[in-house]
Amino acid sequence: MFSGLSAFPLTPLDDDTVDEHAFAGLIERLVDAGVDSVTALGSTGSGAYLSRSERALVARRAILTAGTTPVFVGISALRTTHVLEHAEDAQDAGARGLMLAPVSYQPLTPDDVYRLFETVAGQSDVPVIVYDNPTTTRFSFDDDLYAAVGALPGIASLKIPGVPVGAEAARARIDRLRALLPAHVTIGVSGDAHAAAGLNAGCDAWYSVIAGTLPASAVALARAGFSGDTEEARRLSSELQPLWEAFSQHGSLRVIAAIAEHLGLVHPRSLPLPILGLDDAARARLHAVLADLGLGGPDTGTER
Amino acid sequence: MFSGLSAFPLTPLDDDTVDEHAFAGLIERLVDAGVDSVTALGSTGSGAYLSRSERALVARRAILTAGTTPVFVGISALRTTHVLEHAEDAQDAGARGLMLAPVSYQPLTPDDVYRLFETVAGQSDVPVIVYDNPTTTRFSFDDDLYAAVGALPGIASLKIPGVPVGAEAARARIDRLRALLPAHVTIGVSGDAHAAAGLNAGCDAWYSVIAGTLPASAVALARAGFSGDTEEARRLSSELQPLWEAFSQHGSLRVIAAIAEHLGLVHPRSLPLPILGLDDAARARLHAVLADLGLGGPDTGTER
Repeated sequence: MFSGLSAFPLTPLDDDTVDEHAFAGLIERLVDAGVDSVTALGSTGSGAYLSRSERALVARRAILTAGTTPVFVGISALRTTHVLEHAEDAQDAGARGLMLAPVSYQPLTPDDVYRLFETVAGQSDVPVIVYDNPTTTRFSFDDDLYAAVGALPGIASLKIPGVPVGAEAARARIDRLRALLPAHVTIGVSGDAHAAAGLNAGCDAWYSVIAGTLPASAVALARAGFSGDTEEARRLSSELQPLWEAFSQHGSLRVIAAIAEHLGLVHPRSLPLPILGLDDAARARLHAVLADLGLGGPDTGTER
Repeated sequence: MFSGLSAFPLTPLDDDTVDEHAFAGLIERLVDAGVDSVTALGSTGSGAYLSRSERALVARRAILTAGTTPVFVGISALRTTHVLEHAEDAQDAGARGLMLAPVSYQPLTPDDVYRLFETVAGQSDVPVIVYDNPTTTRFSFDDDLYAAVGALPGIASLKIPGVPVGAEAARARIDRLRALLPAHVTIGVSGDAHAAAGLNAGCDAWYSVIAGTLPASAVALARAGFSGDTEEARRLSSELQPLWEAFSQHGSLRVIAAIAEHLGLVHPRSLPLPILGLDDAARARLHAVLADLGLGGPDTGTER
């Protein structure tokens, strides 16, 4: 279950309130496109910005809408108590997995992070995805900690923030991680620009931002990558290079929200303030990129 | 009011619950030592880790206990809506000022931050302290943004994360900031290791971690610095150098919590999990430093 393409939908807001209708529409779009799982309330799902009740609502709505497609739910929070509350709510809603990043306000030590995962995995009835994202957490795992956390009962998958540049280095890194982790712990790549390289290097999963809003493009890339068609995966990733550059420049959340707004999937100003989102000039450039890529617009309402 | 020594107390927990009794004891200690103001729920007050109701409770308790000593309250949160909720609660409790840092999960743009301060200052009845702390917010103000935010109605003070090394460079920096800001906006130094340099360079305020737990030491340094006795301020700061080094190594929160625990001011394990606090070896080294400095211990229950 913790392999294949996992799509990370936005949690769109409308006038600062969770837009349940638009959110359900995003989930339906993902299921229709054939993603392998949905991960709600990740960074792309603005989990960090939402209240406990909003997060519980989003988890329930995702699971109700996704039908037989498994839904994983992000439970990260600064305080362990709040992580456990989110875990409880997600499990009550029917989550098939919990995703946890060691987000921080005060920088965390490896001991802090180990104990956090030990506590949460130990108190949860569904498996936990370890989410390593140094950019948002300001915490970097080392290999010893990967091994220690990966060995905890209840850990199902490791979401890594990319792979080294170069096919050989990427493959060596994934092989090394695999040697560190129990066989049942899958390795999933994130950072969509790294996806083709990660899949070509043998990752089991792609935890994907773009799949949450442009699922057909992601499914095509994932099928190539998971089937071993490394050339096709690389080619499809190269086609999307203008999007990866926009992600790098503005952050993937602002870009993917602007795409969803442009496609009419969500209301304008769908992000939680203080995040204003892309300015008009950046949106115009992005719309031109989407048109070039044949990725549709509000008239079509479709990805292609 | 937004000048002099502002002390930042811990918000101690006991078994993961706000320890109101210990917190009130900390506030009494600050008032007795003669600090000029108290700032609750800053980084040192673990504001980021607490729920809305816990934060409201802490604000009320601080203000009730502090008597005529002005209390400022940290209102930072990732989402503007939540900042406004904290601002409302703090004002209802009787806060004399609100402290706001542009904390982030997704990195913020200067426009995001400007609008955040515009919104919050525009909707608040008490003045706002702009809290610039790139380490915890991952956002760095530039001088244009200082000037723009400083000019907003309702902004009272700028809390800067230190001053450049060297007396001339520090003085030049404060002079430059003063030229950027309206005359009524005070400039306060933070980062306790920089305090003497900041006061000697002409800062109006010291926003102080150490004053929240070792107020007598901070009051002595502040009196020297604010009265223009630069040599004495430097000497007193040098005496505390072993503490500044511990702050740098472990983060000031872990160190100051360990000191408060050692002095018996708060219960053991007073920090919110996942922050475990200093390990035994680091605590032993810290206790030796405190003994060397004559800063007391659990037997005396006093600072000196």
